[in-house]
Amino acid sequence: MFLSLETRSSGSLHSRIAEALRRKIDGGELEPGTRLPTTRALAADLEVSRSTVVRAYEQLEREGWVEAKVGSGTIIRSRSPEPRPAAIDWDLLIAPQARGPEPWYVETLRMLSSPDVISFSGGLPAPDLFPVEAIQQITRDVLRDEGTRILQGCPVEGYPPLRTWIAQREGVELDEVLILTGSTQGLHLLSQALVQPGDLILVENPTYAGALRTFETAGAHVVALPTRDGRLDTRQIDSLLARARPKFIYTIPTYRNPTGRSLTQEEREQIVALASKHQIPLIEDDPYSLLRYGGAVGDSLRAIDETGVVIRLSTFSKILFPGLRVGWLVAPPELIHRLSSSRSLMDLFVNGPSQASLYRFCQRGLLDGHLRRVLPVYRERRDAMAEALGTYCPQLTFDVPEGGFFIWARLPEGITSRPLLQHALSGGVSFVGGELFHSDGSGSEHIRLCFACHTPEEIRDGVRRLGLALARLLASSEREHGGRVPVEYVL
Amino acid sequence: MFLSLETRSSGSLHSRIAEALRRKIDGGELEPGTRLPTTRALAADLEVSRSTVVRAYEQLEREGWVEAKVGSGTIIRSRSPEPRPAAIDWDLLIAPQARGPEPWYVETLRMLSSPDVISFSGGLPAPDLFPVEAIQQITRDVLRDEGTRILQGCPVEGYPPLRTWIAQREGVELDEVLILTGSTQGLHLLSQALVQPGDLILVENPTYAGALRTFETAGAHVVALPTRDGRLDTRQIDSLLARARPKFIYTIPTYRNPTGRSLTQEEREQIVALASKHQIPLIEDDPYSLLRYGGAVGDSLRAIDETGVVIRLSTFSKILFPGLRVGWLVAPPELIHRLSSSRSLMDLFVNGPSQASLYRFCQRGLLDGHLRRVLPVYRERRDAMAEALGTYCPQLTFDVPEGGFFIWARLPEGITSRPLLQHALSGGVSFVGGELFHSDGSGSEHIRLCFACHTPEEIRDGVRRLGLALARLLASSEREHGGRVPVEYVL
Repeated sequence: MFLSLETRSSGSLHSRIAEALRRKIDGGELEPGTRLPTTRALAADLEVSRSTVVRAYEQLEREGWVEAKVGSGTIIRSRSPEPRPAAIDWDLLIAPQARGPEPWYVETLRMLSSPDVISFSGGLPAPDLFPVEAIQQITRDVLRDEGTRILQGCPVEGYPPLRTWIAQREGVELDEVLILTGSTQGLHLLSQALVQPGDLILVENPTYAGALRTFETAGAHVVALPTRDGRLDTRQIDSLLARARPKFIYTIPTYRNPTGRSLTQEEREQIVALASKHQIPLIEDDPYSLLRYGGAVGDSLRAIDETGVVIRLSTFSKILFPGLRVGWLVAPPELIHRLSSSRSLMDLFVNGPSQASLYRFCQRGLLDGHLRRVLPVYRERRDAMAEALGTYCPQLTFDVPEGGFFIWARLPEGITSRPLLQHALSGGVSFVGGELFHSDGSGSEHIRLCFACHTPEEIRDGVRRLGLALARLLASSEREHGGRVPVEYVL
Repeated sequence: MFLSLETRSSGSLHSRIAEALRRKIDGGELEPGTRLPTTRALAADLEVSRSTVVRAYEQLEREGWVEAKVGSGTIIRSRSPEPRPAAIDWDLLIAPQARGPEPWYVETLRMLSSPDVISFSGGLPAPDLFPVEAIQQITRDVLRDEGTRILQGCPVEGYPPLRTWIAQREGVELDEVLILTGSTQGLHLLSQALVQPGDLILVENPTYAGALRTFETAGAHVVALPTRDGRLDTRQIDSLLARARPKFIYTIPTYRNPTGRSLTQEEREQIVALASKHQIPLIEDDPYSLLRYGGAVGDSLRAIDETGVVIRLSTFSKILFPGLRVGWLVAPPELIHRLSSSRSLMDLFVNGPSQASLYRFCQRGLLDGHLRRVLPVYRERRDAMAEALGTYCPQLTFDVPEGGFFIWARLPEGITSRPLLQHALSGGVSFVGGELFHSDGSGSEHIRLCFACHTPEEIRDGVRRLGLALARLLASSEREHGGRVPVEYVL
């Protein structure tokens, strides 16, 4: 047989024939000047149609590998065929609004994935606490009872029973709820709907890195809400809202990522009153408030709001199954309508089985049972981390958070997060540097440590590694700076 | 008891107390001048903390319902409190790029949902053909074997084994594949990455309505690919690409929605060659090619492409379970990287269980078995519709498509789709008017009929209803126009 085609190879038949011939020519098996078999002969040989071989020969001719000479058939040309048309330079084609830095989460995920590293860098719930068996049974029931319908897809606003359940839980009407694949989608939709390049957005400083990235990608100018002695500075905010008319205010009032801090009840009432007064939308992002380990929590901003100025975002992803991708947004119906329409551009329907399974899980009261089970575990992990930090990293200062997943620790003077992360990673522990959570690039004197996903033993081990990394960095820093770092910082 | 709170009501306690008082004042039960109970007394009465009552009173005072007089307690003011701050006008806040008409799919979904209407307006596979039991068992296995991991979420590029399976099937490398929630998401991501307002995009005319909507929302100027005698006009396209440098060409080469037509092999080679020559990205949207009921199909554009100019989109949603939301995109790695990054702004992770279940379904060879089972059924439904149209709607002209879901029928002269749809809906049958598929608003002389989701009996019944609607419209049109519509159009 003159030519044999790899049966597993893909592509059209004529391209595969051309490719096989190219390989023979390139490998020297077919020398320049050699005549190829006639198309009829090769077609018979390969048991393909003659037109397929003709097409393969034409392709090789276009590419300069062979030439067709009238009367003498198809001849192999010399070894250097003309260059193919150049490949597209995609970087040149990317629109300005879509250019941007490497997404921040890539580094975080990379750190998470190494098996030798104890990761304090995540922000997801502990998978070992997932009620896997319950959701397995429920999913089976869902597919048995309503498989045909939900496998066809749900309307873009969400699986109606889940939408109703959330509306009841939030104390709002059905048409004030939009189901999301997560709060991230909500932030994206809101940015798309409300923000034009150059618009001002006010946020807490520091705040959720993903929100900063979303707002900045939308072209917003992101500015910190003024504070005074660690509290919102209402006078300055009042004047800023009047003067600069930001497109919206974004806040995580409870157990804020990354600091774990919450707004006081007074601050909540103040910020809602200010937003109402100036008619500036106020986005309340609330993924963590159910993760309460002690202390009191103020009212949700939505509950305080009387003028419909608050847009509330929440999610199951910090409590249950981030892999099912279900969050939600509460807003006035006219805005929900607009966001649904915009969402339908990204996805015509939404995942039926996931929403239906989560609905049944909640509707059977399993969410509250799950919380009762996991809260003591998270509390124990938080305490283990706080204690271990006291033991192994006495140079760090931090508050013990009353809820959420994070301890926000201040580094000793002269140390910044990036070199510490280098030492930490080679020592087998990871965290996220504080600069990720600041719109102005500051924050490198802090690190965020997630205590959710490890046992107390692993946490102690990880914090011990962090302590060693810190000591190594302080020692090298002392050497470099000739002892300018105070000696008590060195272990 | 002075006040009783509705236990089912939501909102913070102090707002609920304020609300109950407001109702009493508004209803005349508490007259102007009346003194409210002291905060201590009401707190004891309601068994709440005094500070809660204080807060409720303060709120009422801010709103102007009561006034606090030193020495005489809290007094009801006259009946007309100051107006509350006005509610936000969301329409004013929507950014210009996010304004737009009602999404086209709303009307379609509304039509789909009425139980009395036989709907030919959809575009989804038949749910009665779904292999529900198989996916139920597979999902159970998936959650049992890898529940903990996949319930935590998959990386934004997709569940790695499914990505690998698709890469092998497409004959490309892993990093050339991005898993999507459907082709719609791919079109959205590509528009975001490549299009700036005012950019030119070339499409077939007519084409998929969702693509038109996505491109137009991105601000693109959408123009039809020049044709001549029903074929691509390569000379004109060549000159258009050189002159106008469109951002990309969008094509559905096989069983195109809405016409059911395909590009010939020659046209495929021509369009790929032209795109390569001018280095214009060529988007091949291919949801239907596996739904082949007869005839031959040309090579996929991606298989013809030798310069990496083709971006290929496909989806499971026309074959299997649109409700699981899985499609994919094949493109050069640098573009995949950019689109993943942009996707992570919309959703940090992707649905694990759905992708893992579809992977196992395909990996066990069940996809091919499913196709063998459903293709004869769809072919039968197509034939039933074609035959019924001949019987009941002889005024319509159409080609019988060799694949896909749609018959594209031309209305008799003088009749347009919109009044016909009115008659059809009141007669119990629906379709989609052709103008939805044209970027220039033309096309009202065509209708699209989906034959996928009904049995041959239902199809005959629906087409009979359509014939009656057509007859009624033609009769009324004849009356109005004094017989100007040729008499043979009237049943």
